[in-house]
Amino acid sequence: MDALGNAASAARRARTMLLLVWTLLNAVSGLKADDGGMVEELVTEKEAEESHRQDSVNLLTFISLLTLTILTIWLFKHRRVRFLHETGLAMIYGLLVGVILRYGIPATSYHNKTPPSCSLKEGPSSTLLLNISGKFFEYTLKGEINFREIHNVEQNDMLRKVTFDPEVFFNILLPPIIFHAGYSLKKRHFFRNLGSIITYAFLGTAVSCFVIGNLMYGVVKLMRAVGQLTEKFYYTDCLFFGAIISATDPVTVLAIFNELHADGDLYALLFGESVMNDAVAIVLSSSIVAYQPAGANTHMFDASAFFKSVGIFLGIFSGSFVMGAATGVVTALVTKFTKLHCFPLLETALFFLMSWSTFLLAEACGFTGVVAVLFCGITQAHYTSNNLSEESTKRTKQLFEVLHFLAENFIFSYMGLALFTFQKHIFSPIFIIGAFVAIFIGRALNIYPLSFLLNLGRRDKIRGNFQHMMMFAGLRGAMAFALAIRDTATSARQMMFTTTLLIVFFTVWVFGGGTTPMLSWLHIRVGVDPDQDLQPSGDSFQVLQGDGNQDEGQSKTKQESAWLFRLWYTFDHNYLKPILTHSGPPLTSTLPSYCGPLASCLTSPRAYENHEQLRDPDTDLIHNDADLTFTFGDTAITANGASTSRADATGGLGWSTNGKRSGSTSEEALERELDSREQELLSRGTRLVFPMEDHI
Amino acid sequence: MDALGNAASAARRARTMLLLVWTLLNAVSGLKADDGGMVEELVTEKEAEESHRQDSVNLLTFISLLTLTILTIWLFKHRRVRFLHETGLAMIYGLLVGVILRYGIPATSYHNKTPPSCSLKEGPSSTLLLNISGKFFEYTLKGEINFREIHNVEQNDMLRKVTFDPEVFFNILLPPIIFHAGYSLKKRHFFRNLGSIITYAFLGTAVSCFVIGNLMYGVVKLMRAVGQLTEKFYYTDCLFFGAIISATDPVTVLAIFNELHADGDLYALLFGESVMNDAVAIVLSSSIVAYQPAGANTHMFDASAFFKSVGIFLGIFSGSFVMGAATGVVTALVTKFTKLHCFPLLETALFFLMSWSTFLLAEACGFTGVVAVLFCGITQAHYTSNNLSEESTKRTKQLFEVLHFLAENFIFSYMGLALFTFQKHIFSPIFIIGAFVAIFIGRALNIYPLSFLLNLGRRDKIRGNFQHMMMFAGLRGAMAFALAIRDTATSARQMMFTTTLLIVFFTVWVFGGGTTPMLSWLHIRVGVDPDQDLQPSGDSFQVLQGDGNQDEGQSKTKQESAWLFRLWYTFDHNYLKPILTHSGPPLTSTLPSYCGPLASCLTSPRAYENHEQLRDPDTDLIHNDADLTFTFGDTAITANGASTSRADATGGLGWSTNGKRSGSTSEEALERELDSREQELLSRGTRLVFPMEDHI
Repeated sequence: MDALGNAASAARRARTMLLLVWTLLNAVSGLKADDGGMVEELVTEKEAEESHRQDSVNLLTFISLLTLTILTIWLFKHRRVRFLHETGLAMIYGLLVGVILRYGIPATSYHNKTPPSCSLKEGPSSTLLLNISGKFFEYTLKGEINFREIHNVEQNDMLRKVTFDPEVFFNILLPPIIFHAGYSLKKRHFFRNLGSIITYAFLGTAVSCFVIGNLMYGVVKLMRAVGQLTEKFYYTDCLFFGAIISATDPVTVLAIFNELHADGDLYALLFGESVMNDAVAIVLSSSIVAYQPAGANTHMFDASAFFKSVGIFLGIFSGSFVMGAATGVVTALVTKFTKLHCFPLLETALFFLMSWSTFLLAEACGFTGVVAVLFCGITQAHYTSNNLSEESTKRTKQLFEVLHFLAENFIFSYMGLALFTFQKHIFSPIFIIGAFVAIFIGRALNIYPLSFLLNLGRRDKIRGNFQHMMMFAGLRGAMAFALAIRDTATSARQMMFTTTLLIVFFTVWVFGGGTTPMLSWLHIRVGVDPDQDLQPSGDSFQVLQGDGNQDEGQSKTKQESAWLFRLWYTFDHNYLKPILTHSGPPLTSTLPSYCGPLASCLTSPRAYENHEQLRDPDTDLIHNDADLTFTFGDTAITANGASTSRADATGGLGWSTNGKRSGSTSEEALERELDSREQELLSRGTRLVFPMEDHI
Repeated sequence: MDALGNAASAARRARTMLLLVWTLLNAVSGLKADDGGMVEELVTEKEAEESHRQDSVNLLTFISLLTLTILTIWLFKHRRVRFLHETGLAMIYGLLVGVILRYGIPATSYHNKTPPSCSLKEGPSSTLLLNISGKFFEYTLKGEINFREIHNVEQNDMLRKVTFDPEVFFNILLPPIIFHAGYSLKKRHFFRNLGSIITYAFLGTAVSCFVIGNLMYGVVKLMRAVGQLTEKFYYTDCLFFGAIISATDPVTVLAIFNELHADGDLYALLFGESVMNDAVAIVLSSSIVAYQPAGANTHMFDASAFFKSVGIFLGIFSGSFVMGAATGVVTALVTKFTKLHCFPLLETALFFLMSWSTFLLAEACGFTGVVAVLFCGITQAHYTSNNLSEESTKRTKQLFEVLHFLAENFIFSYMGLALFTFQKHIFSPIFIIGAFVAIFIGRALNIYPLSFLLNLGRRDKIRGNFQHMMMFAGLRGAMAFALAIRDTATSARQMMFTTTLLIVFFTVWVFGGGTTPMLSWLHIRVGVDPDQDLQPSGDSFQVLQGDGNQDEGQSKTKQESAWLFRLWYTFDHNYLKPILTHSGPPLTSTLPSYCGPLASCLTSPRAYENHEQLRDPDTDLIHNDADLTFTFGDTAITANGASTSRADATGGLGWSTNGKRSGSTSEEALERELDSREQELLSRGTRLVFPMEDHI
């Protein structure tokens, strides 16, 4: 039964894949109308035409929904209403239309008969031939269908019609959303907090998954005890639920952060976590699924299975990562060594195609396209965007912005619609309440302990109010939905899907709507302009105080990770950036002299020009959690903020304060950048304006 | 011998390489294959997964093709190679890949058995249920399949895989191309030549369709006579062929025109004709098809059938036109009465959705989406774009530019691929040669007689060299292909498809490549900058010489059409533009006073501001072919172009030469604009630099 469901869903996946372009619209094209010279009129033709029209109407429904959403959102933005985000609104409109479709429209089905059926002994194959008096017709497998649904099919044709193939979400709507997330990463804050983000994303999501999984297993046992559950619901199902529901998506919160210019580091933590944990959740859930059937029906989780799952997880994750990064690197090389930037249209098209091909490449190799696309986005932003012409940089950004906007709102309005039009909901109150409690506990056990651990190593601690905000911002969204709808074959999965839908609704509306009050309640500073110079303020500032010597007693592993990070930064800055982009120091100065010819061949002429006025935009990279090694002298800023009394920096690297502009070894470059970045830090001090708290 | 040996070894090497890549891909993708470990292993699942991967690989193939095309095109543009356009190149790459797929890869089919078949007595329905020991599976109809193809299917699985659903072209790839054409219309020249364009597009396409249809009927008869044709080939089939092959698509020529800044009016004639005749060809072909089955097997064309077809044609065409224009108007109203322009992202998204909804709306109502999209594009450009924020104007333009670029190149590379991978080619030499002759004759009987007729009424005649260029630029492209591939069920249609493909190849490569030599051979002026002021030149200029009185003797209908056009312009300028956009005079001044409240409610505050410095960008509208009524005094420009000795204009409207800036009646506005446009004409005189010829 399970296997069959899987087979059916796999078949479905296969069929939909081709379509990035076409699934979206395959609805439009419908069946190929044989309007050619066919003498014998077929019933099919009229039916096909009708169905084609129906499909157009359905897509129109969604477009009208999106249009309505856009207009209302404009109204909200215009009037500065912040309690409802566009995604929340899209869901509400979706709900309304769902109610209308469900209860408002009489069940008109245009073919009133049960479809003909025929019997075979062999298992189902993807293609079936139908012989009607010597003429052969080709049929393709759509999926298994429950016997009780056969008649339902006819009644609820309209509802069925607005139901999209679940793989559409995965193959068409998610990629632009995820790519855009990667591409629009604000590198500065992201890389500064990379360590924490990765900790939250990997460890945190794993914790959340297991906590929720185990709690839900308890809930399932309870349900079985009180007789609310008769169907199968394995432990692995619970874990799967834990995985899909661990993908947070605080799109609403982030939109408000963006609008109010809330604290940059908190933004980076939330955004980075949500972006990365999407990837983790996908891979986690597919590892669990991959493991599942091997258990020979025990569906219990033993040690070997655990390690197998971990292995699969690592394999898929790193494979996808490599795919994404590789495509990004290839694009960077192509844009560097051609003068494509003279033709922004070609450049944009190439960029788009290469980014899309990551997805296909990963899928073709059996990795996860969505994850690959994420890392491709990050690589493209880090390397390729340096090579693009100014116009293309803007174009690509805007192109993906529009795609992301449309896809996201489409998913959310579809979610609203699905609550009423989806045919196989199983509302189980105990499961739903249990799930709400479980995600709360799971989130808490993710954020607070990890923050505590991270704070041991971080110089600028993640404060209590930040932690509460992160706890609060554990919204669920598009990714959880897409993962949940992907397979709704068994009743366990159906129950999960229904619950996921309700969790998304609740968190988006309640937590999303409560962001602004929460921000002020938690005293989180807003109105911080990251590009703004130091402004007068009545508060006393704390600008990364401390000195290097006191850190030396701290744990060695952290020192090592900082060292590792510095190594990577140096490598990236001295070799990767110069090879892949027009920026960075010329390779001729960073590579050993015997590589001379190769170096000058790989270095772009622009690099020499840039070298003089070197201002690498990524100097922030080096900051990271690595404050432990790179420390700055105590700096006191007066309330009026203009004076910058800068003591010479201490620490093992021996900073020089005079901003030398020549020299080319990696150490010197690093040093120079840290000089300039120190100044930058000063000018960005506004962000940390809270009166110093005791626990810092 | 050596060469042969080399070639053979190269071929072998290439083949080995390919196999290697193929195996590698399969191997990599196979990694994930058996970690599933399912209890009941199903063939289907593996098959589905394999097919999913296969689909990814196929799409990747196309993306690589496009990427290659982009890179090569950059190289060509970089080196200013003009003999091969990107579309021609895309076809070549497509051909190469087609050859490889066809001959390079061994026919490995992963399911080696003939699909199971079952028999039924009733006609095929769109849905079929398959009962396998109590389990039901749902199948959907894919289409009829020839008995002899059943086994072919298995052998050529790989080739079948790269075959897209023909409706993809119509529903996904054509709309952005056509919309972009409408949206990027250079209004000035387009509306100036509207009359001629419409004549060429409607009358010309009809002439071409009938000429080609009848000639091909002769060819078909000949083929039957010499025993080359045994299958059915009706007269209506011939007409259908005439319709689909009459859609010209001089994309290559226009690209070169654009690059070389060739004459603006010739550009407008060619571009306008090709845009409009696409619409005409679609509707024409579907009218012919719609008529076909009613003929009760006679498939002959009688008078009543003709009028029926004309009726259908007019119905579909005007319906689609209304749909497109209506959506454009709605978008204009929405963008006018909301302040969406503060949020470019929302604005762009709305614009995109509304434009797409036109397509769906038209399809849902049974009209032609592609045609609706064309007129929607024109309306959006004429009205909505005035309301958009500056950023959105750019964004929407660029968005559709990218979509158009990708879709167009995709179609052309698919064409190249299809020559070798399409399964049902019928190469019939007589038919092909006949078709080449027929399209030549059809084009000639379209351009020359119509140009003669138009020249009777036009002031600035369509010169001989322009006519030859238009004759030469009768390329066939995406639209002909999309129409031809839409239905390849009968052997007649297959023959047409093959022929269309060859015609596209030939015209794009030969005529497209010959554009630049042809331009110089025909002495068509290039390097005209439409925005450029008058520049010194050694030629004598001819700036629309003539006076109104001599025209009075000419036919009345033309006067009426000019009058009609002026009426429309006045209406558009005084009422439509002010209602739909922020530009134009305030409604309060154009509407009668009793409409006062309504008028001030509909007039945007910006209109009042604009009113003072009124410079309607569409003043050119009024020029059109209507020179007959709007005449200008003789104007002589010296070779150095600066002096503008302007005699008072003659004619019934009594032009005043002093540029009044106040006043608001339609006549005055018109007058004012004509003043300014007269000056504009002078400054654009560079375009008409040929020494006056005798026949003018």
